[in-house]
Amino acid sequence: MSIIKPSTIAGVMELLPEEQFVFNKIKKIIENTFEENGFVSIETPLIEKDDILFAKGAGETEKQIFRIESDTKKMSLRYDLTVPLARYVSQHFSDLTFPFKRYQIGKVYRGERNQKGRYKEFYQCDIDIIGKDTLSILNDASLPYVIYNVFKKLNFEEVTFHVNNRKLLNGFFESLGIEKYSDVLRIIDKLAKIGKENTKKELLEYGLSIDVVNEILLFISNDLNNKDLLNELSLKNKNGLYNEGLNELEKVYYYMLEFGIPEKNIKLDLSITRGLDYYTSTVYETMLNGYEEIGSVCSGGRYENLAENFSNQKLPGVGMSIGLTRLFYQLENLKLTDKFMENQINALFIPMSDEYNFYSIEGLNSLRKNKIKADIYLEGGKAKKKFNYANKINAKYSIIVGEEEFKNKKFSVKNMENGEQITIDKADLVEFIKNNL
Amino acid sequence: MSIIKPSTIAGVMELLPEEQFVFNKIKKIIENTFEENGFVSIETPLIEKDDILFAKGAGETEKQIFRIESDTKKMSLRYDLTVPLARYVSQHFSDLTFPFKRYQIGKVYRGERNQKGRYKEFYQCDIDIIGKDTLSILNDASLPYVIYNVFKKLNFEEVTFHVNNRKLLNGFFESLGIEKYSDVLRIIDKLAKIGKENTKKELLEYGLSIDVVNEILLFISNDLNNKDLLNELSLKNKNGLYNEGLNELEKVYYYMLEFGIPEKNIKLDLSITRGLDYYTSTVYETMLNGYEEIGSVCSGGRYENLAENFSNQKLPGVGMSIGLTRLFYQLENLKLTDKFMENQINALFIPMSDEYNFYSIEGLNSLRKNKIKADIYLEGGKAKKKFNYANKINAKYSIIVGEEEFKNKKFSVKNMENGEQITIDKADLVEFIKNNL
Repeated sequence: MSIIKPSTIAGVMELLPEEQFVFNKIKKIIENTFEENGFVSIETPLIEKDDILFAKGAGETEKQIFRIESDTKKMSLRYDLTVPLARYVSQHFSDLTFPFKRYQIGKVYRGERNQKGRYKEFYQCDIDIIGKDTLSILNDASLPYVIYNVFKKLNFEEVTFHVNNRKLLNGFFESLGIEKYSDVLRIIDKLAKIGKENTKKELLEYGLSIDVVNEILLFISNDLNNKDLLNELSLKNKNGLYNEGLNELEKVYYYMLEFGIPEKNIKLDLSITRGLDYYTSTVYETMLNGYEEIGSVCSGGRYENLAENFSNQKLPGVGMSIGLTRLFYQLENLKLTDKFMENQINALFIPMSDEYNFYSIEGLNSLRKNKIKADIYLEGGKAKKKFNYANKINAKYSIIVGEEEFKNKKFSVKNMENGEQITIDKADLVEFIKNNL
Repeated sequence: MSIIKPSTIAGVMELLPEEQFVFNKIKKIIENTFEENGFVSIETPLIEKDDILFAKGAGETEKQIFRIESDTKKMSLRYDLTVPLARYVSQHFSDLTFPFKRYQIGKVYRGERNQKGRYKEFYQCDIDIIGKDTLSILNDASLPYVIYNVFKKLNFEEVTFHVNNRKLLNGFFESLGIEKYSDVLRIIDKLAKIGKENTKKELLEYGLSIDVVNEILLFISNDLNNKDLLNELSLKNKNGLYNEGLNELEKVYYYMLEFGIPEKNIKLDLSITRGLDYYTSTVYETMLNGYEEIGSVCSGGRYENLAENFSNQKLPGVGMSIGLTRLFYQLENLKLTDKFMENQINALFIPMSDEYNFYSIEGLNSLRKNKIKADIYLEGGKAKKKFNYANKINAKYSIIVGEEEFKNKKFSVKNMENGEQITIDKADLVEFIKNNL
């Protein structure tokens, strides 16, 4: 028979079991933290109707869609979790309780060009709070607190939340006589990437006067601490939009502190714009201190109306999203995933011959009943091959069962890390393993 | 703006949050049990190359494939987890440890006709053990033990494993002079569905003599207990294949007992064939006692060579699979999912006005630190609306914070199930909630 070379499609992440274990562990931490903070899980199909996916137009993303061949209804793989959320909330509106706090962790699909760290299939981990008609601005402070807890549990205590408010920015632009806020936002959004000088150049090319450009750059790149910045901003009193944004930003900041995010982990940052997105008020980016080069690991913001294409009901919301696949790739590259490794098997029973299988299974069952991850090697063969297996699966202990052990109701327990071996009574096995994990 | 009616594609399961909670709980039980028994997780992409998916031909399934539009390499959504496993093991062969015990829980896609309880997108939960060159038959006993534990944790202690061996059956057919075992297997496979008389008719129509048909029906439908059946089978000594199969079946049976499956939960059943599949030795089906009408909830068996299309390496294996989406549908229909419901929020803080938010958040943080699922209602509005929310999200306690509570450092705790309300000191809150969950 001719052999087909086994391979995945290009641009997807497929992990070996040791890596997958760490990936799953991180995913579970995210999931548990979302649940502990009152978010409920939903799961939408990976395939959605094109009518739904492109109701708003997907912009650049539309070229990257994975479309399903179909003679009838056109459909495609989802490219984010926000459009499906909008569809879900509209469709099940009367069965949901508002504010609706939902999380969804799932794969999304985009035909990204093949490039390191860019994936065609990747996990997004989203939390959103959706209000009916209105939604208190205080929710915008509770979200980063959830994300703070996620990264704390992942041992990244040193994370910085960059927070801004688009109303504040737009009010400021308005006061400068700028008409199309979004164009300016888009240019400013690149500041961190292209630097101050290039941003200045682009703003001038766009047609703003040098005075206006200087004022913008001064405004967005100041280095004051949070409280001083708020003070300074409050002295300006530009216009209604500006004041509304400032008031929101202030509330979000003080409530973030109150929820328990330390002052040092918050940076009110007027240069954060999330330029291409649909946010209308609060916007966030999250940086891992010392690893700023990998960019924002969790972004989001507030939007005025989630589902205007699917519902006449006004549904304001606020959301944040972790791109888990990319984050994992980056953490692995930085060798930051090793600390999540652990023994997947604590004790492997190795019967020296088949006649000791039943006795070994007795021992196995006693460990498993005590929630100790244990297994048994059931293949025949030489002792060397058996220990080799124990080593490769990274078992903490091998429990050897031969004639002596069987006759005397004993187990020989070998520590696979230091090679030490002792023989103990059958009745003492559970206690011994428990005490030595 | 014109509104698009929000809807999913046809034939997919989308759940409300309360149902999703139960679904996730069942999925987690399956996942944890797989891990506790030494299976490691892998995750393969949902999209595979058509070369890979159809290397063996997918038979009837090929018509049901969701294909991705593509100008270059042809690709489709996976329709099971076995072909991706074969591809994964072959591709990563040198990085894996054998026997390779892997689990995968993931969605697969088949264009089933729209019909109740049939889904186009559904979860499979697979465990397989793959050997290099050889794999001990004893593994065939360890798998059902894992599945037994899954159903025990799901409160279905009364589950019956129907176990058979294809070598035994084929050896028996050989002794009757039947040439194409697979045709006969396919007819016998329908026994439970179409009954004895119809099976008889089909076997006769296929061209077997009445004597042969009677002998087959007698053989496959006896009602002996397991030990008596094995005894009777051992008296027959038909031929090499028959004896090999009998010997394997015996070993699997005694080791299933030894691993801890009670005798009453095992039925050696010579009528189980898994007729259309690629199994070559042990085959299983699993029934929930009292709910036999829903069919097998977990099936599987042993195959001689997992990946002959992708590798020259011989890879024998044994696997079992739970179709979770269909199982959930059935359990929900039978009202058997209610027992998994629980309060997703134990305590909801309700500040009577914004000025008590900070004090409420203090209380909230103290509960969360103690792993109590708590949340806060941050929207304004009337008290009635707030309690209504607490009711709807099914919070166990509402913790009311008004002027009196704030001034006196108290919390008023209302049990939402019986309406009882008491006022306690702030310092006693954690203990009180802990003791009354």
